[in-house]
Amino acid sequence: MNIDMIEAAAERLQGRARRTPLLSSPFLDEIAGRRVFVKAECLQHTGSFKFRGGWSAVSALDSQTRMRGILAFSSGNHAQGVARAAQLHGVPAVIVMPQDAPHLKIENTRAMGAEVVLYDRAGGEDRHAIGTALAEERGLTLIKPYDEPQVIAGQGTTGLEIAAQAADEGVETGQVLVCCGGGGLTSGIALALEARAPGLRPRPVEPEGFDDVARSLRSGGIERNNAVTGSICDAILTDAPGRLTFPILQRLCGPGLVVSDDDCLRAMAAAFLRLKIVIEPGGAAALAAALYHPDAIEGDAVIAVATGGNVDAPMFIRALDAYGDGA
Amino acid sequence: MNIDMIEAAAERLQGRARRTPLLSSPFLDEIAGRRVFVKAECLQHTGSFKFRGGWSAVSALDSQTRMRGILAFSSGNHAQGVARAAQLHGVPAVIVMPQDAPHLKIENTRAMGAEVVLYDRAGGEDRHAIGTALAEERGLTLIKPYDEPQVIAGQGTTGLEIAAQAADEGVETGQVLVCCGGGGLTSGIALALEARAPGLRPRPVEPEGFDDVARSLRSGGIERNNAVTGSICDAILTDAPGRLTFPILQRLCGPGLVVSDDDCLRAMAAAFLRLKIVIEPGGAAALAAALYHPDAIEGDAVIAVATGGNVDAPMFIRALDAYGDGA
Repeated sequence: MNIDMIEAAAERLQGRARRTPLLSSPFLDEIAGRRVFVKAECLQHTGSFKFRGGWSAVSALDSQTRMRGILAFSSGNHAQGVARAAQLHGVPAVIVMPQDAPHLKIENTRAMGAEVVLYDRAGGEDRHAIGTALAEERGLTLIKPYDEPQVIAGQGTTGLEIAAQAADEGVETGQVLVCCGGGGLTSGIALALEARAPGLRPRPVEPEGFDDVARSLRSGGIERNNAVTGSICDAILTDAPGRLTFPILQRLCGPGLVVSDDDCLRAMAAAFLRLKIVIEPGGAAALAAALYHPDAIEGDAVIAVATGGNVDAPMFIRALDAYGDGA
Repeated sequence: MNIDMIEAAAERLQGRARRTPLLSSPFLDEIAGRRVFVKAECLQHTGSFKFRGGWSAVSALDSQTRMRGILAFSSGNHAQGVARAAQLHGVPAVIVMPQDAPHLKIENTRAMGAEVVLYDRAGGEDRHAIGTALAEERGLTLIKPYDEPQVIAGQGTTGLEIAAQAADEGVETGQVLVCCGGGGLTSGIALALEARAPGLRPRPVEPEGFDDVARSLRSGGIERNNAVTGSICDAILTDAPGRLTFPILQRLCGPGLVVSDDDCLRAMAAAFLRLKIVIEPGGAAALAAALYHPDAIEGDAVIAVATGGNVDAPMFIRALDAYGDGA
């Protein structure tokens, strides 16, 4: 993995992915006690940064391989990112999803032309066995959600944009907070910033009780979570950092930050009130850290990546009911 | 009013206003039966396009006049746009607001450093008398919400961006739907499109029962509404088109479109689900027309301006409760 791969991905994404805006509000600056900038990846195609990695990986395949089709495992945003990238390339996609995934995410993935194969996670069905059988039978290429170089390269294009947009705002030093699951986005951003904005230091942000990356960074080895359900931040509940991503995180990131589910709901409401964007709980973790854990952060400015906005209405209403009065 | 004034305003706004994104979603295209693009002015500073006109007008004053301060009448978005522009220029602003204006809008205007003078609209207090007395006493300059050349020029910069962004999307002909109150934004966009994208035809969109602009365009003379309250679209409930704006609308716009409050709630939910942006009822009128009145529109593509996002949580919850399941 290196900056050249990210630059090459940026060329393939040109005119395909959106250059999402870097938003701000004096009200958020006041809460945080420093300037706060939000990279609004919820406005990306398919509602999350995952479209970048999906497009990057699908477009990097040779055309014969690509024509045979794509396979992915995902309960959510990666599913939609890959499905849409395959659809726009005119190639088939099979997405293996747990049958208890959010209904809207399943429907969206189908609406993007993918064949959705459901499996029973509670009943012990093995998604890898299902996927491997399908891939062999049909010659599909598996696109992993984070431990895959072209996916990391695609997510890293977010970092190229942050570097340029921060410079436009006069921000040369500070911390870049990234909602972190397996570390694909965080490591991609870290590589981009190392090359293009070395004064900006990335830091992963995770939900309480699912802080495998923070613990791994402390211990120096890959640490795992005990569970991958039990927080509303479904998008970033990953078992452990990846074998490709972890060494990059270790080399380039500051210590991990941890936020509560309640912090995330509060940040969702703040983004609604002050930025007019919709963020899902897992996509609000970085902003939550910026706003409600200011003492854990250094510098005059902080950049938080709002990674996705694929939230069901009842969860959004829960955030507004609790914090929509601006308190 | 001409394109040169809009270009000059664009120069003054450079690096100050955001170039808001032109968003889209295959799901919205499917609802409308044509390509739908949304100019997301809810992401503008202060949460609406009004910052453009506010900055344009404040920055166009000679510095001695500006230093004495600014006066505006407004219950909402113009108040915030002017207050923020004055704050960033370091000059005083007095905003005369009805005491029954939304609490959040009053608080935001105060938080942007303005002195808010409340008056009792029900009790018959005359805001013009209050404002005129203050302006004379302190030497303040009044910035009108729409019938003011530098305000129209500022709003018109939205049209310059639409022209360029539509060209990037390969859209050269089609209709541009604009949520319309007094016509400042619509006339500014119309002038910009006339010069930069003559294949794009602007059309004003208004709430049922408050369609003064549509009726005025039909009759050829300025028609008034019977009331300026009674719809949830508070941002665009204006008495009548302006003396400056109406001739421009008459020369350049297609027929007006009318939407119901319920259409607007439904469009707010669609924007939440598909675009991940927050729109207020009056800012959703154009998207509502694009999605739910497709037979009244012509062309393969339509552009809807989402003019603002300053909505209280309870109203947003109302939209999600009714239409947040994607129906």
